[in-house]
Amino acid sequence: MSLIVQKFGGSSVADAEGIKRVARRVADTRRAGNDVVVVVSAMGDTTDDLLDLAAEVTPNSGASRELDMLLTAGERISMAVLAMAVNAEEGVTAKSFTGSQAGMITDGIHGSARLVEVNPGRIRRALEEGDVAIVAGFQGMNRQTGDITTLGRGGSDTTAVALAAALDADVCEIYSDVDGVFTADPRVVPSAHKLDTITSEEMLEMAANGSKILHLRSVEYARRFNLKLHVRSSFSQLEGTVVIPENTEDFKPNNLKEIPLEQPLISGVAHDRSQAKVTVVGVPDVPGSAAQVFGLLNEANINLDMIVQNISTDRPNVTDISFTLPQDQGDKAVATLSLAKEKLGFEEIKYTEEIGKLSLVGAGMKANPGVSFKFFEALSNAGVNIQMISTSEIRISVITELEKLDEAVRAVHTAFELDTEGEATVYGGTGR
Amino acid sequence: MSLIVQKFGGSSVADAEGIKRVARRVADTRRAGNDVVVVVSAMGDTTDDLLDLAAEVTPNSGASRELDMLLTAGERISMAVLAMAVNAEEGVTAKSFTGSQAGMITDGIHGSARLVEVNPGRIRRALEEGDVAIVAGFQGMNRQTGDITTLGRGGSDTTAVALAAALDADVCEIYSDVDGVFTADPRVVPSAHKLDTITSEEMLEMAANGSKILHLRSVEYARRFNLKLHVRSSFSQLEGTVVIPENTEDFKPNNLKEIPLEQPLISGVAHDRSQAKVTVVGVPDVPGSAAQVFGLLNEANINLDMIVQNISTDRPNVTDISFTLPQDQGDKAVATLSLAKEKLGFEEIKYTEEIGKLSLVGAGMKANPGVSFKFFEALSNAGVNIQMISTSEIRISVITELEKLDEAVRAVHTAFELDTEGEATVYGGTGR
Repeated sequence: MSLIVQKFGGSSVADAEGIKRVARRVADTRRAGNDVVVVVSAMGDTTDDLLDLAAEVTPNSGASRELDMLLTAGERISMAVLAMAVNAEEGVTAKSFTGSQAGMITDGIHGSARLVEVNPGRIRRALEEGDVAIVAGFQGMNRQTGDITTLGRGGSDTTAVALAAALDADVCEIYSDVDGVFTADPRVVPSAHKLDTITSEEMLEMAANGSKILHLRSVEYARRFNLKLHVRSSFSQLEGTVVIPENTEDFKPNNLKEIPLEQPLISGVAHDRSQAKVTVVGVPDVPGSAAQVFGLLNEANINLDMIVQNISTDRPNVTDISFTLPQDQGDKAVATLSLAKEKLGFEEIKYTEEIGKLSLVGAGMKANPGVSFKFFEALSNAGVNIQMISTSEIRISVITELEKLDEAVRAVHTAFELDTEGEATVYGGTGR
Repeated sequence: MSLIVQKFGGSSVADAEGIKRVARRVADTRRAGNDVVVVVSAMGDTTDDLLDLAAEVTPNSGASRELDMLLTAGERISMAVLAMAVNAEEGVTAKSFTGSQAGMITDGIHGSARLVEVNPGRIRRALEEGDVAIVAGFQGMNRQTGDITTLGRGGSDTTAVALAAALDADVCEIYSDVDGVFTADPRVVPSAHKLDTITSEEMLEMAANGSKILHLRSVEYARRFNLKLHVRSSFSQLEGTVVIPENTEDFKPNNLKEIPLEQPLISGVAHDRSQAKVTVVGVPDVPGSAAQVFGLLNEANINLDMIVQNISTDRPNVTDISFTLPQDQGDKAVATLSLAKEKLGFEEIKYTEEIGKLSLVGAGMKANPGVSFKFFEALSNAGVNIQMISTSEIRISVITELEKLDEAVRAVHTAFELDTEGEATVYGGTGR
């Protein structure tokens, strides 16, 4: 008998049919003799509807105690109806628990609270009594004040992974409307194929570089607690992708074929359209000028990604500094730098969102120096111009023109022989 | 400075406009220097929508732990957006609290829990800090299990009255879409007028006999705790109706003219279309046969209202027993009696929902024997046939044909000189 944590996203419980389908799967897992804890997101568009309501009432709510209270109603609804369906339609006893009832203790930062403790005493008791425990994702409680908090983006994944770690679960299954982790986004590369396994290190790089299947935070959490994740679809019975924690020599996937001894060279190609590029033109080429630029951006809490500094050959004594950052921080970055124009002594700022980031990820590239040659050759053959480059031990990333991005992804995917025949199945529209 | 509890029903917060209107009123009350606690129902049709969702997922949820969890999401939404509006639009600090956070402790009967304790420590602290406290109506927590419960029909009124009593509030204002308590339902009697005051004893009789403006339970609660209720509209600034607790000799209504020393003879005419009549025909006229009939109905938890036993002159040794009860208990009553037909020895059961109940209520009738004469004379002049009669110290009720009910209400209203010129204003469609 295993203890299995199953997390279902909003697209899996978008309507009554979805709720019933999920109830069936939960009940089947329980009937197979497992202990089951379910973490559920708000139904379909509920969270957006609640945000719209808040915006109608006031444009000035911001991230606040009250907005958190409002948004948590969404999971309260989905968990209660799911529990009803499991009880009444499937005849398997189930109880729902809010984040606070499930012992998800957080700090007090409304809108993006961090977990400080997980005390799932009531969940353990429910399991001991033979019940399926259904837990509201995304939410917790600040113990100091008793106020309800939300965990921010990817919050339900975090709830699931944190609960699985606290309960020492055998596996945490993350259900969405896609079959697993693919070698590339199937909407861009129709010949992309699903990976049976991926290491958590690789998954971290994929998530950090544009893959939306799992949130970075939950992958980090799972890796830290040596927890096995299984990414799969609630719309099919197919096995998905198992994210294997490192340092797990005796790792035995549950109900899955053994992990191959040798990891494939490359896991996949991730892409990201959410970045923008800022170029600070004509910065005086003296020691400390780059430090000043990045010091200011750091004070403004702006997250930089890639950075390049070019010495301009035709203009001595000045340099250009380029960096990328999330588009939604673009305005703030430009404003911060513009206010310090005199102090920094640069000529002008250029800002563009017409860029894309492409990342090749694979644990195997550590030991294979030929990877970067093949990578740049593929981009060159496809006529893709490279604006910036960054690398880690298991990743190479480049910034390209936005309109060349899809073509670049397909070219790299093909060059590393990741293509399969036939098309990948994508359920629903969002691919979340 | 007063402590004022304000309760807003679903029709007052049906949409973003309603929320903003209520926020303005709450903030104005606070700005006038009062401590303010707000109890809010779910927005408009939210509760019905949630019930529909539950029914879509399973027809077998019943009253349950999970249904209670589901329904409480409605108040969670309305209280959070109201708190946002008061904070951000009105600039008055406000905090929202769930039933559990507000210390509404109940027994464990899901769907119709009873309050066992009210511990509003967090509400007191919020008031001390100068905040408006906004509390979710209708909900509480079973302390033994930590499970969320709901208080059943009229639950938000009960929350408001119970909180007001626990906080020793100066007044509990119950807001809806009508201006107060009327001498009759203005949809039936356009010349009905609003009462400035009514005693809680009279209000109890009105509520128990079909007036829907206040729920019986909250009137009982307010009377028990000697709490002043003020029934008024959230759509106007008019003073409403003050429900005066008895035994309050030094009663001074807040911001209202003094109570007249002499109560008017009659407060109003209530009517009720939700009753049915059962007649058990040909019961053996022996001692104990009526007791047997009512004993069986009592065991089946059926609430009887009026009872009449007629000796049939043309059939010696048998009698007919008639009683009224809520229509939704009709099937159960008929089934219960039919199963015992042989044991009870009656001939047949007649069942009809084509009846109406009319009640004349007034504390002044205690000392005025002329009231019943005038009452029956008015009904007789209007050609209304009376099927059953019951009375209390301050009430006379009759059962009439359903199709004659409205006419009967108008006739009695006129006979007791309750008519005014002009028509009463009714906001919204429901008159709740």
